[in-house]
Amino acid sequence: MKIAGVQMDVALGQPAANLTKIISKLTQTAAAGATLTVFPECALTGYCFDSREEALESAETIPGPSTQRLAEACAATNSFAVVGMLEAAGESLYNAAVLVGPAGVLGSYRKVHLPFLGIDRFTSYGDRPFAVHAAGGMNVGMNICYDASFPEAARCLALQGADLIALPTNWPPGSECAAASAINTRALENGVYYIAVNRVGEENGFPFIGHSCIADPTGATLATLPHDNEAILYAEIDLSRARNKHYVRVPGKHEIDRFADRRPHLYGPVIEPHGRTPPGRTDVD
Amino acid sequence: MKIAGVQMDVALGQPAANLTKIISKLTQTAAAGATLTVFPECALTGYCFDSREEALESAETIPGPSTQRLAEACAATNSFAVVGMLEAAGESLYNAAVLVGPAGVLGSYRKVHLPFLGIDRFTSYGDRPFAVHAAGGMNVGMNICYDASFPEAARCLALQGADLIALPTNWPPGSECAAASAINTRALENGVYYIAVNRVGEENGFPFIGHSCIADPTGATLATLPHDNEAILYAEIDLSRARNKHYVRVPGKHEIDRFADRRPHLYGPVIEPHGRTPPGRTDVD
Repeated sequence: MKIAGVQMDVALGQPAANLTKIISKLTQTAAAGATLTVFPECALTGYCFDSREEALESAETIPGPSTQRLAEACAATNSFAVVGMLEAAGESLYNAAVLVGPAGVLGSYRKVHLPFLGIDRFTSYGDRPFAVHAAGGMNVGMNICYDASFPEAARCLALQGADLIALPTNWPPGSECAAASAINTRALENGVYYIAVNRVGEENGFPFIGHSCIADPTGATLATLPHDNEAILYAEIDLSRARNKHYVRVPGKHEIDRFADRRPHLYGPVIEPHGRTPPGRTDVD
Repeated sequence: MKIAGVQMDVALGQPAANLTKIISKLTQTAAAGATLTVFPECALTGYCFDSREEALESAETIPGPSTQRLAEACAATNSFAVVGMLEAAGESLYNAAVLVGPAGVLGSYRKVHLPFLGIDRFTSYGDRPFAVHAAGGMNVGMNICYDASFPEAARCLALQGADLIALPTNWPPGSECAAASAINTRALENGVYYIAVNRVGEENGFPFIGHSCIADPTGATLATLPHDNEAILYAEIDLSRARNKHYVRVPGKHEIDRFADRRPHLYGPVIEPHGRTPPGRTDVD
């Protein structure tokens, strides 16, 4: 099974133009044999808005007109897509990602970990438990950008059965270490495939670093774009490798099981409330 | 403040010879200005024992005769050491690490995550909560080898105030990805210094890969030994960098806080029992 990531530039506040580009790229990756194609964070809307009001003009409901257009493109190409966008939900604005297939929206995710940066300064905290969704035989989990720096985010998805974690991202300068080590580590520690797809270009003075990559369940790099140009990366994946957490290196002498060897009763501090105030925020939950 | 890691060969089942070597290396690193020196997993005893009985001949209590000799060396050099060893405790045998200073043992750790490999096939599971210990102004947490592949292990230590995590390790072939990405990721995600010190040489047909390294609180590599020879690595560390989790990249426009931005109420799955049986074991807890 083949997956793809589209490292692309995005136009701030121009969802119609971005949607046209996304559908064009999806047609290209599906023609190349990709079952699932991942796009960057806020690929539909742009990210560096300077106010909530400005961003709301590009936000949409999920499902909504753009996810409907994406579903039609998925139906035409018989494939699946993960796309970052801003979600309007009642009074709330979320930084979200949608998993879309031929029949429509299969799942969505609201970013749980918010840096004080771009539109995330004005969005609401993701308020739903981590969840895994089925797409074309794959169990797909979604995280967004900064989530990759918090091991709990991928861990929860993997424990819930994810074969593959998709990370639409908008990595700015300063995220080089996350790109270079965290993606491989998330794949390794959870025994899953992990695809991180960043954007390129610049918005309001913030450049983005590219460096999209795909890691396999042993943490090895399957594909990488070590630059900040538009490009597409592909990898072949084997779901049985993500589902087998028991590795036999030397029978009876060196065997490990990434899940069975966990010791959850000693992990209590991980879920303790911290009572700290995130920078720039008053809406702590 | 300077720290050191001694990447060294270890003689299986020869604790007296290994102790002499450890003290010699400690004298050398302290003379070079190191406040804290880290040695490999089971540096005192060796690792690839083929039975519990064979290993027990090299095991000691903590504190015990070897930790007393280490404390005398620490007093003579006015420094601190983290050393891997096998611990005999009543009927139990643990893969342990000790933090020793001029006044004696300051803390010890019993390996929580056990691969089915070497002596870990016959040791008991670490049974104590993760804990941080003070040494020369530093707050030091200890993990051992395979623990580094489980993000919860370093996370618990960091949440408890560790400035620096020391990982005595015996990485065999197959651990290259852990060495290349997990150490940097643990440092990055927790905003701490992380020093991983592997052994070199071979025991019972198992070679070890070296690749000891030190990462800073941004995940950047401070020092690395990209080979499997005996050598010492050093790094200067600044404890204030590990204690400040709030990074201001562009004031008011790009700020993050590695701890305040956590969302513990969504991490419930991390502590759920898994009910799975680790390979080769019947003593599941």
